[in-house]
Amino acid sequence: MKPVEWLGDRLKIIDQSRLPDKVVYLELKNYHGVISAIVELKVRGAPAIGIAAAYGIALGAMSLKSAGVKQFDKEFQRILREFAASRPTAVNLFYAIDKMRQAAAGVSSIEGAKKKLLLAAETIRKHEESAMRRLSKNGSALIKDGWTILTHCNTGSLATGTTYGTALGVIKAAGEQGKKIRVFADETRPVLQGARLTTWELIQEGIPVTLITDNMAGYLMSRGLIDCAIVGADRIAANGDTANKIGTYSVAVLCKENRVPFYVAAPLSSIDINIRSGRDIIIEDRNPDEVTSIRGIRIAPEGVQVMNPAFDVTPHKYISAIITEKSIIKKPYKLSISKLFEEEI
Amino acid sequence: MKPVEWLGDRLKIIDQSRLPDKVVYLELKNYHGVISAIVELKVRGAPAIGIAAAYGIALGAMSLKSAGVKQFDKEFQRILREFAASRPTAVNLFYAIDKMRQAAAGVSSIEGAKKKLLLAAETIRKHEESAMRRLSKNGSALIKDGWTILTHCNTGSLATGTTYGTALGVIKAAGEQGKKIRVFADETRPVLQGARLTTWELIQEGIPVTLITDNMAGYLMSRGLIDCAIVGADRIAANGDTANKIGTYSVAVLCKENRVPFYVAAPLSSIDINIRSGRDIIIEDRNPDEVTSIRGIRIAPEGVQVMNPAFDVTPHKYISAIITEKSIIKKPYKLSISKLFEEEI
Repeated sequence: MKPVEWLGDRLKIIDQSRLPDKVVYLELKNYHGVISAIVELKVRGAPAIGIAAAYGIALGAMSLKSAGVKQFDKEFQRILREFAASRPTAVNLFYAIDKMRQAAAGVSSIEGAKKKLLLAAETIRKHEESAMRRLSKNGSALIKDGWTILTHCNTGSLATGTTYGTALGVIKAAGEQGKKIRVFADETRPVLQGARLTTWELIQEGIPVTLITDNMAGYLMSRGLIDCAIVGADRIAANGDTANKIGTYSVAVLCKENRVPFYVAAPLSSIDINIRSGRDIIIEDRNPDEVTSIRGIRIAPEGVQVMNPAFDVTPHKYISAIITEKSIIKKPYKLSISKLFEEEI
Repeated sequence: MKPVEWLGDRLKIIDQSRLPDKVVYLELKNYHGVISAIVELKVRGAPAIGIAAAYGIALGAMSLKSAGVKQFDKEFQRILREFAASRPTAVNLFYAIDKMRQAAAGVSSIEGAKKKLLLAAETIRKHEESAMRRLSKNGSALIKDGWTILTHCNTGSLATGTTYGTALGVIKAAGEQGKKIRVFADETRPVLQGARLTTWELIQEGIPVTLITDNMAGYLMSRGLIDCAIVGADRIAANGDTANKIGTYSVAVLCKENRVPFYVAAPLSSIDINIRSGRDIIIEDRNPDEVTSIRGIRIAPEGVQVMNPAFDVTPHKYISAIITEKSIIKKPYKLSISKLFEEEI
């Protein structure tokens, strides 16, 4: 399965909004199509958004018929701004935009810039592929044979555009090591990434998975049925506060109350050291229809008010460890995260 | 709106499974129809189940063409057993069955027994109507002007077959007192009683209501947007442990973590002093289809395993107060509940 694939002149993606009923591939021939796919959750998951955006930016640049380098740069910057406006919370999008901006900076010819941009997108993809592989292996050390693991949202190949993934990558790696594990997947309302995508990926991997509604997770913990929870991240602040799919905070609090370890698995590209704490992370509010309808079927009376924050913030104190491609870090996160990036330089 | 109404020879109910799209009334002419309506959640909510079952038992008894009192009693006991097997968790069902059994006990003629049973059902209905009215007024004293209240599942007229209700009755009474309140309604997966029924009732009452998915409640609390949570109960043990709709436990833990008062509103008929603690409450497991489909639309891959507990148990330590028709009781619940029932005798 290749959720995000570059075909030389177009980007091929799996339409995640159609899963699991139908496996539909889309070929996106211009950058507007890539932005729409991100906005409409056809491609979703912080790392996958980053990779798709990088190729989308390259695609946009390649289509420019600018008269000179100066005009090219102006039009290129506009494309970057359009991508930046697509989804606000996942930092990987902005990580990709920054890398692409750097790749084109100071290049003397338009053709040179186009080549460099395509190369930069490819580098991001390869970097994420390798990061997820290492992250998954690192995290698998935390998973004991026989454990039952709770996960929220979808964090595997689909969400990351890579072979492994973040939280689901850790689970897959543990499974590959022969550990007998079992997964409870929160359905993850409103968009049902858990019900539609995580169960689908785990069935394909041959890892036993049981689907529950989001409000059952706490009860299972209180009955002693969960050994640990692992989730991904859309943006981690410098102090470890983690923005992730709505409902993650509740899972974390329920873990604390029931003394269940709560792990976040995320590549360094999901850590935003420029943001001091979770308070400063912008939370995307999405269309109320996602709450009042499920797959096109209305479930609430007309005229009802709705809130639909797509993410929440889990304060760092609830996080037992953050699993990255470099190492597994622990509290105090302000220190351990800054060390992670110091070594990076 | 009359969710449960006796028409002399048949029971008229609102089909709650069709709401809010359509207001469909069903006229149930035999007791099998009443049992099916309970099993299929056409009538649901612990107190409403109790009232419907009482009339259903009367309806069943009235249809018996027994040769003598002894045969009548044998057939009557079979009807009671059929009702007892319909749904295991809500104690109000068993409360109603006990009252009906007592009403028919020792009656010398079949016609006499039939009359007494109809009278007993009417008494249960009137008793619940009055209990909910007093409970709602009692509880409204806890609600301050300007508060935003979180509720889970549906606990108003529909759920109780009465004018007020339990948790929603308290909210309605506070609204009637002119308090400016606002409600966040959890959608309450899998059956969506919050999205379909609570929003619908509150819109009719003119109380501002905002629909959220279950996994958003914790996040709203962490942002300081919730002043208190109120829920109903399906069965309260002698120590205060409370079985209620799945997800209630999670709301209670999130309330504790965020120092938000967590109230349970329930009539004495929902308290089961024969059960020592929540450990002994039987939790109903329902059809996996409720989780894998939403209103007939499949949301998960074929073959996925599912858990579907309909209720969970909230340990008494999380409950700030229990609101009953007699008084508002507090910890230690073992003592305050036993006092409630001592006075009753």
